[in-house]
Amino acid sequence: MPKISIIGSGNVATHLAKALKSKGIEIVEIWSRDGNKAEVLAHQAGAERAEFIRTMKSVDLMIIAIADDAISAASHFLEEDQLAVHTSGSVSLEALGPGRRGVFYPLQTFSKDKEVDFSHVPICLEARFKDDEVILKEVADILSDGAQMVNSDQRKYIHLAAVFACNFTNQMFSIAEDILKGQGLKLDLLLPLIEETTEKIKTISPRQAQTGPARRGDMHVLNSHLDLLNDNPDLRSLYGDLSERILKNNDNL
Amino acid sequence: MPKISIIGSGNVATHLAKALKSKGIEIVEIWSRDGNKAEVLAHQAGAERAEFIRTMKSVDLMIIAIADDAISAASHFLEEDQLAVHTSGSVSLEALGPGRRGVFYPLQTFSKDKEVDFSHVPICLEARFKDDEVILKEVADILSDGAQMVNSDQRKYIHLAAVFACNFTNQMFSIAEDILKGQGLKLDLLLPLIEETTEKIKTISPRQAQTGPARRGDMHVLNSHLDLLNDNPDLRSLYGDLSERILKNNDNL
Repeated sequence: MPKISIIGSGNVATHLAKALKSKGIEIVEIWSRDGNKAEVLAHQAGAERAEFIRTMKSVDLMIIAIADDAISAASHFLEEDQLAVHTSGSVSLEALGPGRRGVFYPLQTFSKDKEVDFSHVPICLEARFKDDEVILKEVADILSDGAQMVNSDQRKYIHLAAVFACNFTNQMFSIAEDILKGQGLKLDLLLPLIEETTEKIKTISPRQAQTGPARRGDMHVLNSHLDLLNDNPDLRSLYGDLSERILKNNDNL
Repeated sequence: MPKISIIGSGNVATHLAKALKSKGIEIVEIWSRDGNKAEVLAHQAGAERAEFIRTMKSVDLMIIAIADDAISAASHFLEEDQLAVHTSGSVSLEALGPGRRGVFYPLQTFSKDKEVDFSHVPICLEARFKDDEVILKEVADILSDGAQMVNSDQRKYIHLAAVFACNFTNQMFSIAEDILKGQGLKLDLLLPLIEETTEKIKTISPRQAQTGPARRGDMHVLNSHLDLLNDNPDLRSLYGDLSERILKNNDNL
């Protein structure tokens, strides 16, 4: 089994450490800017807490799971012959500087208090050297059946698509919750609908799955919804823009 | 068991007819503007095809599941003492005219080729008379454990919230699919992420569940995503607006 150390103690670092440990992979050291958090995570992962990045022991794979803008600096503290990867959707491989560097980007949303099952998480892998690709693939395959090689350019677009499919989708849920709250109702009411919306696109494309007043071209309902949003100009304009998109797509069906 | 007839042969009518029949409820007649579709659905539901609305037999409940703008006219063909409901999120009870009228709004998205399990679908009920509320509740309870009384005003906002949570969410999936297609990639890649996004809000609120570059206030990633969308001004502006909303919410956390 490969030996791994982790730089970082945030959501991604924590979920990865737990998942790797649960698969029997040895986590050697954990370093974090926040010494206390490193201590806690090291304890959970059965690892040592590292005092400095530059003195971390040599391992099969060093995972840098920290804020995007700190990745480059952390990487430069590591030897060029230490295989090191970052876990970000939006940072290029080049940002890691020279040497045995790569990317290990789990395409998933991680929240502090929500366990994540890695077994089907797509892990987007990239490495500068072919030999290192093999190592990354080996580690990723232990965690998930969704590991695949993806270049930096594709990864940028995957990350962009993920923002729409996950972050902006969640924002839609948040807006729906606010609207219901105004009526003394809870988001629970919409959970079966939300579940079905997600379920559908497993078997038919989102374009085919599109329903609702804009899809039907029902201007009467669209206008009455815009009226309901008169007190909230931002939301009204968002409703208008999204309906416009759907109306336009109707023309191309 | 109550006897039911259905006016309509579209998605809602079809899914309701199948669900009612599967629960052992007798569907007496089906009427549709499109005689052939009425014939097909009547056959599936073990019902008769009705030639005219005004000569349909008296039943315990008449369900009008047709386009919003045709509901009022259909209702006026029915006797005032025939309990009749529409299934729309956005049409008022009053639009049905005088007499024993009500609303039976299943809060779900129905597509032609996708079976729907009604057992947890919230069914929003409203009736002009207390006695009829009892009948609607009885029928709805046979189909689902999610039936509840909801007034016309609440229903309008529920429908609006549903447009955000379902129709606009699906539009986000559609956009994500387009972005991935441009890279020769498939939406499948995002399905685990989408599933987790939906799964999360069962246990934490969307506000807590929000992740992504806008949530982190990561202007570097936001700007690089906007750059990727330079060729698509509409999408660029949508990305900007949604990120803006999330950034604003950050201030209130």
